[in-house]
Amino acid sequence: MNNNKFHLTGLVAAPFTPFDANGALNLAMIPRLADHYVATGVSGAFVCGTTGEGSSMSNEERMIAAEAWRKATAGKLKLIVHVGHNSLVDSRALAAHAEKIGAEAVAAIAPCFFRPGSVSGLVDWCAGIASAAPKTPFYYYHMPAMTGVNFAMVDFAPLAVKRIPNFGGIKFTHENIMDFSSALAAGEGGYDVLFGRDEILLSALVMGATGAVGSTYNYAAPIYNRVIKAYKAGDMAAARREQLKSIQFIEVFCKYGGMSANKVIMKLIGLDCGPVRQPLSQITSAQEAAMKADLERIGFFEAVRAG
Amino acid sequence: MNNNKFHLTGLVAAPFTPFDANGALNLAMIPRLADHYVATGVSGAFVCGTTGEGSSMSNEERMIAAEAWRKATAGKLKLIVHVGHNSLVDSRALAAHAEKIGAEAVAAIAPCFFRPGSVSGLVDWCAGIASAAPKTPFYYYHMPAMTGVNFAMVDFAPLAVKRIPNFGGIKFTHENIMDFSSALAAGEGGYDVLFGRDEILLSALVMGATGAVGSTYNYAAPIYNRVIKAYKAGDMAAARREQLKSIQFIEVFCKYGGMSANKVIMKLIGLDCGPVRQPLSQITSAQEAAMKADLERIGFFEAVRAG
Amino acid sequence: MNNNKFHLTGLVAAPFTPFDANGALNLAMIPRLADHYVATGVSGAFVCGTTGEGSSMSNEERMIAAEAWRKATAGKLKLIVHVGHNSLVDSRALAAHAEKIGAEAVAAIAPCFFRPGSVSGLVDWCAGIASAAPKTPFYYYHMPAMTGVNFAMVDFAPLAVKRIPNFGGIKFTHENIMDFSSALAAGEGGYDVLFGRDEILLSALVMGATGAVGSTYNYAAPIYNRVIKAYKAGDMAAARREQLKSIQFIEVFCKYGGMSANKVIMKLIGLDCGPVRQPLSQITSAQEAAMKADLERIGFFEAVRAG
Amino acid sequence: MNNNKFHLTGLVAAPFTPFDANGALNLAMIPRLADHYVATGVSGAFVCGTTGEGSSMSNEERMIAAEAWRKATAGKLKLIVHVGHNSLVDSRALAAHAEKIGAEAVAAIAPCFFRPGSVSGLVDWCAGIASAAPKTPFYYYHMPAMTGVNFAMVDFAPLAVKRIPNFGGIKFTHENIMDFSSALAAGEGGYDVLFGRDEILLSALVMGATGAVGSTYNYAAPIYNRVIKAYKAGDMAAARREQLKSIQFIEVFCKYGGMSANKVIMKLIGLDCGPVRQPLSQITSAQEAAMKADLERIGFFEAVRAG
Repeated sequence: MNNNKFHLTGLVAAPFTPFDANGALNLAMIPRLADHYVATGVSGAFVCGTTGEGSSMSNEERMIAAEAWRKATAGKLKLIVHVGHNSLVDSRALAAHAEKIGAEAVAAIAPCFFRPGSVSGLVDWCAGIASAAPKTPFYYYHMPAMTGVNFAMVDFAPLAVKRIPNFGGIKFTHENIMDFSSALAAGEGGYDVLFGRDEILLSALVMGATGAVGSTYNYAAPIYNRVIKAYKAGDMAAARREQLKSIQFIEVFCKYGGMSANKVIMKLIGLDCGPVRQPLSQITSAQEAAMKADLERIGFFEAVRAG
Repeated sequence: MNNNKFHLTGLVAAPFTPFDANGALNLAMIPRLADHYVATGVSGAFVCGTTGEGSSMSNEERMIAAEAWRKATAGKLKLIVHVGHNSLVDSRALAAHAEKIGAEAVAAIAPCFFRPGSVSGLVDWCAGIASAAPKTPFYYYHMPAMTGVNFAMVDFAPLAVKRIPNFGGIKFTHENIMDFSSALAAGEGGYDVLFGRDEILLSALVMGATGAVGSTYNYAAPIYNRVIKAYKAGDMAAARREQLKSIQFIEVFCKYGGMSANKVIMKLIGLDCGPVRQPLSQITSAQEAAMKADLERIGFFEAVRAG
Repeated sequence: MNNNKFHLTGLVAAPFTPFDANGALNLAMIPRLADHYVATGVSGAFVCGTTGEGSSMSNEERMIAAEAWRKATAGKLKLIVHVGHNSLVDSRALAAHAEKIGAEAVAAIAPCFFRPGSVSGLVDWCAGIASAAPKTPFYYYHMPAMTGVNFAMVDFAPLAVKRIPNFGGIKFTHENIMDFSSALAAGEGGYDVLFGRDEILLSALVMGATGAVGSTYNYAAPIYNRVIKAYKAGDMAAARREQLKSIQFIEVFCKYGGMSANKVIMKLIGLDCGPVRQPLSQITSAQEAAMKADLERIGFFEAVRAG
Repeated sequence: MNNNKFHLTGLVAAPFTPFDANGALNLAMIPRLADHYVATGVSGAFVCGTTGEGSSMSNEERMIAAEAWRKATAGKLKLIVHVGHNSLVDSRALAAHAEKIGAEAVAAIAPCFFRPGSVSGLVDWCAGIASAAPKTPFYYYHMPAMTGVNFAMVDFAPLAVKRIPNFGGIKFTHENIMDFSSALAAGEGGYDVLFGRDEILLSALVMGATGAVGSTYNYAAPIYNRVIKAYKAGDMAAARREQLKSIQFIEVFCKYGGMSANKVIMKLIGLDCGPVRQPLSQITSAQEAAMKADLERIGFFEAVRAG
């Protein structure tokens, strides 16, 4: 039984890591992002994850960024530091650092070069990371589309509860709502299962989701907060209408290249986070202009305005 | 614009094709199944599809089965005859036959040996089938997990509306609720998008689903009708509770081998549909006994009782 | 131990099925193709397989085509009729017919909608087909890229030998030369393992291949016969040079769309086999002209001339 | 045009990184391994790659190991340091270090979390690494099975030649012999294409391979050198016989778990390299004993004895 009382709820943004034109860390942007999150109803920041291109940064850069995030979020937002790495040695170092700087939680995605061959192998891997930050809740970041590691979370979670004293839960970034629902129900509130597919948040709310982590909460939290509000009020038609707005703009940036186009949206709302790093490739300015026009056409910029 | 007024709504069962111990068609079972559907609140039968092992039957067998279904369902249940085949010639023959016997609709899954290389290639393929049963609504059966054909239905549907006069809609058997929602919204009611993942029906209802086709509606429609009823009444906790019952028993039969174990459940509720055909393999009697015990333990047999 | 003395050796063409402009069978072409094979040093015809688009034809068409092939090949070429089908009932009917018309062998690819779940399940499936043509050698057609059925042939073959009295061997269309070599060596000549990747024939010859089945033997057998001749003479540099010619033209038709472009090559050498059937899509005349120019540039038309 | 005169030829071992029972680097083992390579006719060591579990080590450990390898191989074996990493920053640091310690070459596998979206994106990525060690030949390590990055090397190589002044070639670890042959022929000797599938080395020799890198050259180089010798002497039957010995023992360790079982073979020949690191899992002692018995039964230990 897991007595951990810490919980993550509401919308947690997965920040883009701000880089300058040369691809170096642009730390000055971080407090501005944090303020934006607060202003738009975001409850936390999950940093250096997939959206944050943590895997494209050195450990030193990840630590520097984490410290800047800690400073910018202190007293305002919960900070979850992603420490996943193909090397357990590195992952443990990042976890220890996150605990030292006072992160509210650490999280780690599965390794993607060599991969655990069984669910207990995955639990062992997570235990090895979690024990390096023993006072900090640990979240497993489940994202089979990126890692190819795809065990049922309803099998993983009970083992994790037994083996990892500081197990906090799962960031569930997968379209398998059956497993999401099953893992969530099995925990009976003892751990969190944070939903990670922004485009179908409403489908998870109805199955009991109380927290979510995602990249589009960086700039579109107002839409999602309206989804949540309407859902809670029992107005499913309104909730669906707002969710469809989210689907619409996600279709737009997917059309223009996914991750890289997604990051450009920050620039379009006045919070330029710079280019993506290799091996991702930057969209062209022509694509940027076309995407902006598409977003205008669907009323995106009004929809994401706070208040 | 599609002026087709035909709609499929509610729960449509995808019947198991009843075989006898030698693997031959067991036609006598069909009227009993139809009566069971009526008794448990099912609105239609989608026959000779994946669950019905249509691909493991000859055309002659498929036609004989379809005729038996027509007779058994007339005036009671809508009949949708699945006519998908790797050969267009065969698919067209099956479609023409379905129209001749008065099926309410025909449906076809994509071919899975050679596959359409583009969404317009898929629309062409469907048009070739639909034109062989021109007075009958045609549904495209989208199931990427079985066929490897995975185009966005939000792209497919508008083209199908233009190209196929008798386009009725889509049987959407895929976990991509974003595309489901988007394709459904784009149609504005002009065509149906029937949801095909029983285990997450509630997640689709909240996005606007009004009809569903699935294998577990063969025996568990009462659970799902309670999901729908609670959802409509705004009682999401109750809806979720019932959906979790569905997830639980689906986890059970998946553990015992999927399709083949699923078919055995019919026997366990007194409606023996016989063994599966090759290349599927039958579960053992030891597995059957263990599955029965598991289902009893979770209260399955009470939960699926009608009334 | 398998006492079957029948063997397939040398180059076996997998004919394109000739269709007319409307997509109907063009039987008149078949004797011309057979004569071309004889003239270019081909030893047999593997009809209605992948290249022959057997899966896009009705059973009736497949039987009509098989009969035309039998007539055209009698006394000149060995005839292997492909009878694979998703339905065992159909596959057995096709096998019985092939035996009746006197085919030297039958062959079947694995079913690709439902798939055998184990190697013994696959052997059972094959046994079910082989027993419908009990006097005719049966070949399993291994092509994981098309079917997703990928068991090691070194595991399959010994079971098949025990279970299928008329087991003739395997058509091995897979790049896994390790398994090819291992399955071939394990058989000690008791069954054939025919290599099915024309582009790397030489790599299989050196591992002991004595027979091969492929689509490019339809028109380029002279190149491959030079590969074989040079290999047998111990002139590896010459063998490699010829194999590289094959790789070059295969790269060309892959660039223009694969199967469909491949079939157009027949037209370019004066043996028009017509268009492909849906769901494959025909290349445009602009693509055809560009491909022809590419083939001319690499000296393809000289290289494939017989004699 | 690439004027680089450096070439890698013969058998290059991809060493297992020796760890002690606690999983720490066991540097004392490295000179013993190097001596063993020399004694068994190996020409170089490709360190900290897949077999070396480089991705499971920190950069500091990788540098320490590389230095130990440099010391142990100097004047005896060519040293290729694998510097691939998901982060370009890290990869560049590792490359610069490899040049500083005097490695004969550096190599990098593609990143596997984010992946280059085009062949030119991959060339850019490689250029970014190669420029950090500008005086050292750079090899791209092509292994789609591990990374999911699968561009044709015949397309990659010409671009790499133009863009990377110190491009040395490709470590081609993929069963696609067509692309191997094509990329090799296209280079006309200007760069190396080292074959990386030990189990089918003979199939690559016949297509022109002159160098190979692999994990089984750690302990079985005598077998492969006999393959090469027989091939060069034109005795294909003998070459094939030796290649089949390689296939046999590879089937054995694959049966017992792949990588982890493979590493245990080092212990069985008296050169204990310790356990694998997580996320790989160690085989049990029962499995080890069973594998040993299997290897004895096929005469493995005699076959790999030098001399």
